[in-house]
Order: sequence, then structure tokens, then C-alpha cells
Amino acid sequence: MSQRYRIAVIPGDGIGREVVPEGLRCLQAAAEAHGFELECTEFDFACADYWARHGEMLPPDWRDVLGGFHAIFFGAVGWPEVVPDHVSLWGSLLRLRRGFDQYVNLRPVRLLRGVRSPLRDREPGDIDFLVVRENTEGEYSSIGGRIFEDTDRETVLQETVMTRTGVDRVLRYAFELAAARPRRRLTWATKSNGIAISMPYWDERATAMAQRYPEVAADSDHIDILTARFVLQPDRYDVVVASNLFGDILSDLGPACAGTIGIAPSANINPDRTWPSLFEPVHGSAPDIAGRGIANPVGQIWSGAMMLDHLGEPAAAERVVAAIERVLDERADVLTPDLGGTGTTEGLGTAIAAEIAA
Amino acid sequence: MSQRYRIAVIPGDGIGREVVPEGLRCLQAAAEAHGFELECTEFDFACADYWARHGEMLPPDWRDVLGGFHAIFFGAVGWPEVVPDHVSLWGSLLRLRRGFDQYVNLRPVRLLRGVRSPLRDREPGDIDFLVVRENTEGEYSSIGGRIFEDTDRETVLQETVMTRTGVDRVLRYAFELAAARPRRRLTWATKSNGIAISMPYWDERATAMAQRYPEVAADSDHIDILTARFVLQPDRYDVVVASNLFGDILSDLGPACAGTIGIAPSANINPDRTWPSLFEPVHGSAPDIAGRGIANPVGQIWSGAMMLDHLGEPAAAERVVAAIERVLDERADVLTPDLGGTGTTEGLGTAIAAEIAA
Ligand SMILES: CC(C)[C@H](C(=O)O)[C@@H](O)C(=O)O
Ligand SMILES: CC(C)[C@H](C(=O)O)[C@@H](O)C(=O)O
Repeated sequence: MSQRYRIAVIPGDGIGREVVPEGLRCLQAAAEAHGFELECTEFDFACADYWARHGEMLPPDWRDVLGGFHAIFFGAVGWPEVVPDHVSLWGSLLRLRRGFDQYVNLRPVRLLRGVRSPLRDREPGDIDFLVVRENTEGEYSSIGGRIFEDTDRETVLQETVMTRTGVDRVLRYAFELAAARPRRRLTWATKSNGIAISMPYWDERATAMAQRYPEVAADSDHIDILTARFVLQPDRYDVVVASNLFGDILSDLGPACAGTIGIAPSANINPDRTWPSLFEPVHGSAPDIAGRGIANPVGQIWSGAMMLDHLGEPAAAERVVAAIERVLDERADVLTPDLGGTGTTEGLGTAIAAEIAA
Repeated sequence: MSQRYRIAVIPGDGIGREVVPEGLRCLQAAAEAHGFELECTEFDFACADYWARHGEMLPPDWRDVLGGFHAIFFGAVGWPEVVPDHVSLWGSLLRLRRGFDQYVNLRPVRLLRGVRSPLRDREPGDIDFLVVRENTEGEYSSIGGRIFEDTDRETVLQETVMTRTGVDRVLRYAFELAAARPRRRLTWATKSNGIAISMPYWDERATAMAQRYPEVAADSDHIDILTARFVLQPDRYDVVVASNLFGDILSDLGPACAGTIGIAPSANINPDRTWPSLFEPVHGSAPDIAGRGIANPVGQIWSGAMMLDHLGEPAAAERVVAAIERVLDERADVLTPDLGGTGTTEGLGTAIAAEIAA
């Protein structure tokens, strides 16, 4: 009997609906090639239909509905014309990340063959690092409020919350990752010179963790200079670990330096496997280009490869990534506009699926 | 009788001490050419000597000592080997910004002639925007603390504080600036999809302000995609207004895209002129290259030009910027290593001063 994985599929909104089918096409090709099965169940949890009907982004029993799957394959959620972003995101993606304790958001940044970096003189191999983002706490918080409303004294407080548990577990994950890589380098993002309570704490825990990994060369950069160095010296980085907000920023900026946000994958991982992990591209629902069939499906497909790896199918995962890289390098005829081509979402997805099957 | 301006000079630490003399050299050349006087008084408020002797970064009566000057010309403070960054910065620079209510941090980002952008295909003129950073409140806060110390439940709270007064005044400044520029475009940085209290408030105030400036084309970008777009489409931006933290990030990343942090100037402005404004380069004390005489003095010199403009000497200010640009463009022999040359701090400063005098 072949292995069978049960996957919850949430295409979501906008280009999420366009790229997820291409992701599935490629995943099925990989499953066939490697002799396992993916049993996919689709859910319409999105702004456009589900929210419009129920006034909620997820059903009240979402934990039971989704909790039994081996993984969640997620497109993108958000349709600001209908639902404000903070409502739709807190009601779905951010809720899933927290509710399923996916405390690591792993985002590889790699300049692939066939992709042109906006940076001068950068070739494939020059940019190849991992952003490890804390994914459940920190700056992303809905705690706080207003006082003296509608007066000149109106004041707003917004709480950042860090816990020892939350900080240590993501740091440990990042150090383990760095220790297993050839360069064994780790940089933690901070801003302890300006943000005076939480960031010195983050530094303190990182410094303590670094002592437990003497084999890892660890240092820190303030977030301002770190973003500058992504542009000026991207080859400097190996594993970069960051708080929720800083990781969010670095994992958009990094892929931009490596050519396009359209190809960047991410894995929202629950390393303890108490709940399913969630795999989604870094890009969002992109209302500005939705419906035109030109969205780049590579971020979604690559996220699928990360899912296969997590499920225990590393050979299949590698096959998918290799197929992506080969098509980007050799098939200029199918590249989407963000890659400088004139191809379509479906054309690029189909080409990669064919390469996987070949 | 010629106009006389009294300037407090704080070279600070590290390369601050190397670039400030070059700044003064150029300012004096401009003063001579335009017939006004700069009366400079130097203060040793820094980690290395003042803090070592007094255990404080500033004297208790700093407000009286500095408050009567027309402006403050500041190098850089910070020497983490001796004083932790958050102590030295909160004790000096951040204290001055707040104490003198310098609520606007204005940071021009411009790709100058003679400077090579790390971005492909970007020529002078392609990158030319202003970052307007809120400079007194927001994420830079020392409010918060720890509970359950030294246990597994250890929890840290960090408060972000925004006020209607603080948000509105910096937004108003930015909209006024945008309205007076040819392109009349403004983008505000946000992250209201993740930071659920303060950032929706910032959006709300920006949206209200935008209604009062119908002649300005205003929109917002989430900070993650905004950093990506600085790399991918820097020509998109004209005036970018941001909270304290986001402005800090964007004003390091922007100059990196325009070639080097070494040339970026900044003005910490009290627009109401109730207290002196402070002019400093964007770069810090750079302990890694301090003492070698290779620091780029252009950020310091350009900050001096912004000071002249603020003092009411716009023609002299323009003369300094024109001299900077001419030297960068025509004198490859004096460029510092960050600009791809082999020149020295003094060599570049002297060349610019000579050009101002010419
Ligand atoms: C949509 C948004 C809430 C989300 C985030 O900020 O985490 C996105 O930017 C991401 O990076 O996954
Ligand atoms: C040194 C530091 C506190 C400062 C800041 O974050 O404001 C610096 O980075 C700047 O941008 O002026």
C-alpha cells in the first residue's frame, strides 16, 4: 500500500485561486513519480465567498475541521475592498498560525538559475540564505487600545508580547538549522538601540542560545542596517532569525533581492507536530493583478515542495525544486511577466509539472 | 554686519570624530562664500570620554547648555564595547530628539551623479525621494517590563505609543512637503494587517489627512512590500512618511539602494523652532572602520547643507550639495572605499571644500 497524505487546500482570494491549482498539478505529478498519494480536500475559507455568506473567515469548529489533516496547502487571503485586511488576516491566516502553534515561519531566499536579480553582479549561488521568522507572538498583537478618544490628547497603546518559551523555541530551531548547514553562520535581527524593552530581551536570549552552539558563528544586526546589507552584501547571510515583524520584512525584501516575490515559498511549521503545518507562498492575494492569469505560480509550487519535505518525502521535494529551477533557466517562453516574460500562470505551472513527470 | 549662527558641535564616537571636521571644513567654506558666520562650540558628549568620566551621556542641565544654539551639528554616538547601545543612544541622541521636540526626521534618498547604485539599470534621477520619519514616539519606547522573571513563564511587554498630536503633525509635514513637489505623490508605510491597534490608527489618521490634501496622490504600502519595492521600483516613490521604526528602516534601505549609507544625510527638525534642530548623517559610529581615516564624510557634509537650509541660507546649502555631486562625479581619485575608491576621509572632505570655495 502506498503512503497517503490528507491535505487541506485553501486557495483563498485573488491570485491564490489561480496559483493553487498549479501547485496541486505539480504536487500530483511528484506524487505519481514517487509513488505516494495526496488526498486533497478543498475549503472555500476566503473573503469573497465564505466571509460574504457567514461574516466569518473560518467556521467556529475550524480546529476540528482542519486539525486532522497532515498539512494545509494555502494560497493567499485578503480582499480589502470587501473585508479590511486586519479583519481577514486575523480571522484566518494569523489565527491558523497561532491556533496550530506553527511557531516557525521558514522562508528560503535563493537566487535561482534563470532568474535575474535586480542587484548588479549577483549570480545564482550569491544569494542563498534562510529567514527563520517567529510566527506566533511579538509585534503582531491585538492587545492595546485608545484613550481620550476624539480629543487632541487621543493616545494609542499597542503591546508587543514576547515570552521566553516563544523566543527560545524559534532561536533553538534557527541554531539547529545553522549548525546543520555548511557555513554554520547565524545572524539575529534586533533593534535594541531603539526598542528598549523587548529587543534587549531578544538579544539576551539569543546570546544565551549562542553559547549552547559554539560551532555556529553567530552575530546580530540592527534591522535598519540588516535591510541595507541584504542589498549591498546578500552573500553575507546564511541563517537569519528574526521576530515576527522583522521576519515579515526580511522575507519580502530578501526575495525581492533574489528577483521577485512571486517565487518565494514559506512553511509555517509546528515542529512538535501537535497540529498540521501550513504551506503558502510569501506573496499575498494581489488584487491588482488577480483575474488576469499572469500570477507567478512558482512561490506556490515551491511551498508545495516544502510541504512534501515536511511530510517525509524529501526526494519528491527535491525533484519539484529541481524542476522549477530547470524550467526557469531553460524555458524563457513560459515565464510570467514578473520574471520578464509573457507567459501565463497555467503555462508556467504546466511546464513545471511536465518537467517533474519527465 | 554679517549674520552669525551659533552651532553646537557634538562629534561623538567612532567615525563621528572623523567626519565632523570635514563637515565643518565644508560649512566654513560655504559661510565664507556666502558672507555669514558660523560660531561653533564643541561638546565632548560621547561614550569614550564624557560617559567614562561622568557615567552619563549628557550633563543634567543639557537643555540649558544646548537649548540656546541655532542648531546642533552631530556626528554619531555609540561605542558598544564600553556602553550598551540602548544606554548610550537613549542617553543622548534619542533624548535630544525628544527633549527638543524634533518631531520630523527628514532623510533625502537620491542617487547622485558619480555614485553607482547596487541596483541594475538605475541611473541618477531614477531614485529621488524623501523619507519623513516620525521622530519622537511610536515603537521607540522604554515603557514595558518583565513578569515571571527567570521562569519558563517569563513574559516581556513592550509598549508602542502613538498620539494624535504626534501622528498628525508628522503627517501634515509630509503632506505639505509632497504638495510642494512636482510629482505630488505620498506613500505612507503601514502594517495594519498584522499590528492590529497602532497601525490601523496610523492608517485612519493618514486617510483623514489625505482628504485635506486632494492635490496629493496618496496611498499606503505595507512595510514588507514597501521594502521590496524600494529594490524593485524605487522610481515609484516621492515622499514616504513612516512611523519611527519603519522610517528608521526605510532610511537605511533607501540610501543603500542609492549606493551607500555613507552619503545619506538627515535633519531632526523642530518645525515650530521652539528648540534647536539637529543635523547628523544616517550612518552610525561604525566601530568596525573607526580610526582608519576611510569613513565617507559626505553624509556629514550633506547634513550640514540641510542645516544651512534650515538656518535660512538655502543658496549656501545648494552650493554644498552641488559641490558634493560634482566631486563625486568628477574626482574618482578622492572617493572613499565605500564608493569604490581608495581615498581618505580628509581627502574627500578637502576636495569638496575646495569645490565650494571655487
Ligand atoms: C498578510 C500578512 C498578515 C502576512 C504577514 O504579515 O505575516 C504576510 O505579509 C506574510 O508575510 O505572510
Ligand atoms: C542609533 C539609532 C538609535 C538610530 C535610530 O534608530 O534612530 C539610528 O539608527 C538612526 O537611524 O538615526
